[in-house]
Amino acid sequence: MRTSMPQTLRARLRRVRLLLCDVDGVLTDGTVIVRGRGDEAKRFNLRDGQGLVLLRRCGIRVGWISSRPSAATARRARELKVDFLVQRKGPKVAAVEEILAHTGCSWTEVCYVGDDWVDLGPLRRAGVGVAVADAAPEVRATARVVTQAAGGQGAVREIADWILEAQGKKAALVAEFAA
Amino acid sequence: MRTSMPQTLRARLRRVRLLLCDVDGVLTDGTVIVRGRGDEAKRFNLRDGQGLVLLRRCGIRVGWISSRPSAATARRARELKVDFLVQRKGPKVAAVEEILAHTGCSWTEVCYVGDDWVDLGPLRRAGVGVAVADAAPEVRATARVVTQAAGGQGAVREIADWILEAQGKKAALVAEFAA
Amino acid sequence: MRTSMPQTLRARLRRVRLLLCDVDGVLTDGTVIVRGRGDEAKRFNLRDGQGLVLLRRCGIRVGWISSRPSAATARRARELKVDFLVQRKGPKVAAVEEILAHTGCSWTEVCYVGDDWVDLGPLRRAGVGVAVADAAPEVRATARVVTQAAGGQGAVREIADWILEAQGKKAALVAEFAA
Amino acid sequence: MRTSMPQTLRARLRRVRLLLCDVDGVLTDGTVIVRGRGDEAKRFNLRDGQGLVLLRRCGIRVGWISSRPSAATARRARELKVDFLVQRKGPKVAAVEEILAHTGCSWTEVCYVGDDWVDLGPLRRAGVGVAVADAAPEVRATARVVTQAAGGQGAVREIADWILEAQGKKAALVAEFAA
Repeated sequence: MRTSMPQTLRARLRRVRLLLCDVDGVLTDGTVIVRGRGDEAKRFNLRDGQGLVLLRRCGIRVGWISSRPSAATARRARELKVDFLVQRKGPKVAAVEEILAHTGCSWTEVCYVGDDWVDLGPLRRAGVGVAVADAAPEVRATARVVTQAAGGQGAVREIADWILEAQGKKAALVAEFAA
Repeated sequence: MRTSMPQTLRARLRRVRLLLCDVDGVLTDGTVIVRGRGDEAKRFNLRDGQGLVLLRRCGIRVGWISSRPSAATARRARELKVDFLVQRKGPKVAAVEEILAHTGCSWTEVCYVGDDWVDLGPLRRAGVGVAVADAAPEVRATARVVTQAAGGQGAVREIADWILEAQGKKAALVAEFAA
Repeated sequence: MRTSMPQTLRARLRRVRLLLCDVDGVLTDGTVIVRGRGDEAKRFNLRDGQGLVLLRRCGIRVGWISSRPSAATARRARELKVDFLVQRKGPKVAAVEEILAHTGCSWTEVCYVGDDWVDLGPLRRAGVGVAVADAAPEVRATARVVTQAAGGQGAVREIADWILEAQGKKAALVAEFAA
Repeated sequence: MRTSMPQTLRARLRRVRLLLCDVDGVLTDGTVIVRGRGDEAKRFNLRDGQGLVLLRRCGIRVGWISSRPSAATARRARELKVDFLVQRKGPKVAAVEEILAHTGCSWTEVCYVGDDWVDLGPLRRAGVGVAVADAAPEVRATARVVTQAAGGQGAVREIADWILEAQGKKAALVAEFAA
């Protein structure tokens, strides 16, 4: 993907100012760890988290939009200082539009990442709609691009790398770390 | 599978009014997380859960039948508002027949999903007997159809999609989400 | 494996009266779930557990031998009513020989399953030495036979099926479940 | 890798007196298990742990260097009696150099294992820089050698085996276990 990124995709990624992600199945592998009592648990990928931190350092804002509220999601969002967290049932397009109104961004400046039917609305509207490798077939068909990694296995880091590279910020970051 | 679903399978799926699933190895990957003390935990797949919610919206009833009682299973069933939950040792055919008596459904209206020998009885009798991809060889051999996904990795969602499609309800659902 | 089981292996499996397994990496995937405080956790495979239950029903005794004591292992062994559980540091050959003395079995009646160097001693001596698919190279080289499944992913159930089949008990069990 | 280890790599491994590892993504699969409340959890691989124990028995010192402090990491390091544990934000080169000053080792005596950009600095300087199989592309490109196993799936054990073999200590260890 990196070596052969099509010019139109690169141009669209260059415009991105806001990365919005579904949570379950995108930032996780879509499973939830359940016990008879107590909080549910989820597995988040730390390389994804590092990608989001680097994006924010480069001025890209990050938001998570889930239609299944979970205290585990809220906690991980706090740890990563994610700019926007929306956890509520119902259509996601309205949730994105509230964030757009707040930030003054437009849909063309949004990169949206999803895995299931509930993501189809924002995925169609976003400047760059991305499906994770193991997304539902309809989601992969609708997305402009599909990650190589499955949800929870580094898909969001892969996207962060695309944005950083398209915006000309990746080489300097890598060089800084390699110093 | 979706593009080439055989006509006989499609006709059988059209008749389904009840989806009955084994739990461990079907709705999970068959592992259980054990500590020295306290409740055991299990990993459930949220895309499977979403499939069950969509089926219920379309009038298909859903039941889980496990021969290994677990508080984690009971909790997840409650979250998803599953119509029937049977957790007890012993033959599963009797458990299914109680549900049939209660609902007025017949075996031909049942889609049953299993992964191990204990599922062979209901699998043979159901209108559509399904094995998950990583089921025991004898279960795969007995089932009418085998999912592409392994247990806990979206196998039940795959089956939900088959039923919705065969019953002509999938396109409208996808269009609603994509609006 | 089932269709083409070599005659010598079948003859050796027919003699097995005792299945002895290493735990970590054999009955689990070799990982341990660690928190800052509290008990560690492990993931056990329920199909493996079902295989051990079926073996015991057919008169094969089952023992687990671990050189890394863990309360999670003890609990799972109790749940499955495993006949012998040895959890202690040090050579495993001595642990097996205590079980042999207790049961009156000989090494040729033992099927031993392992994944790491610490299992090489009993593996060499057992009538049937088995390595799981992802065992250390030296263990695979020493074992008489290697499972198709990795540790924690059904390797022990695979072995239980071999023993039941070689001893002529599998077909009746399957038929009973399929009734 | 074992059969065809290049002579230059073998010569470099022979000089190693210190194995330094990143933690998340190297000793784990890079995921963290999060709940609404309470400690986070991580999955460590026991075969990796066994490799570190064997290295220490052979006089190689072991250190873990993480830029994301976690009580789970501290606990697992204690269990394994790891010689050095550094958990703090910021560049890792300085952390390694403190360990070098303390031990009197030089960079050429260090084998460093990493998976992400933050590891590039020590990876470039170490006598043997290793990337795990699923490391970031820039890390794999910088490393002298890449493991076959992914992080958390035995990558560190693979490296331990390389060092033991290059230093002529592996055969005796295996023979001792096989006795």
